[in-house]
Amino acid sequence: MKVRVLVRLKPGILDVQGAAVKRALVGLGFHDVTELRVGKVIEVEMDASSAAEARGRADEMCRKLLANPILEDYTIE
Amino acid sequence: MKVRVLVRLKPGILDVQGAAVKRALVGLGFHDVTELRVGKVIEVEMDASSAAEARGRADEMCRKLLANPILEDYTIE
Repeated sequence: MKVRVLVRLKPGILDVQGAAVKRALVGLGFHDVTELRVGKVIEVEMDASSAAEARGRADEMCRKLLANPILEDYTIE
Repeated sequence: MKVRVLVRLKPGILDVQGAAVKRALVGLGFHDVTELRVGKVIEVEMDASSAAEARGRADEMCRKLLANPILEDYTIE
């Protein structure tokens, strides 16, 4: 079972990597970029009997290791 | 218009970060994890008149800056 976890900085947190990438894009002529944020995508393949079970395990992984709840939000897909 | 870009290491390339995270998860008791890869998610908000135009711009950004074609693959969503 494959699960995709997206980990992003919380809305209020300054995303320095995103700001640097945005600046670089504008410098390359992409003046239409208004907002850019960089996060992590973690693709986990696991032995699970159902999609719901895999999601539950992934949620546990996020809480225990993959995401920092002070700075980051996560979504499971 | 919001576009999501996923940048991942190509299949043949060793993902050291993913291997470290997988090892840590197994150490925490997640023995059901068989494979794990870490990539980047870049969320770009841009002024574009259509979804197709936004996708095209994002593709150009990937080719020029966001992805390293030697090591990485990207998908636009």
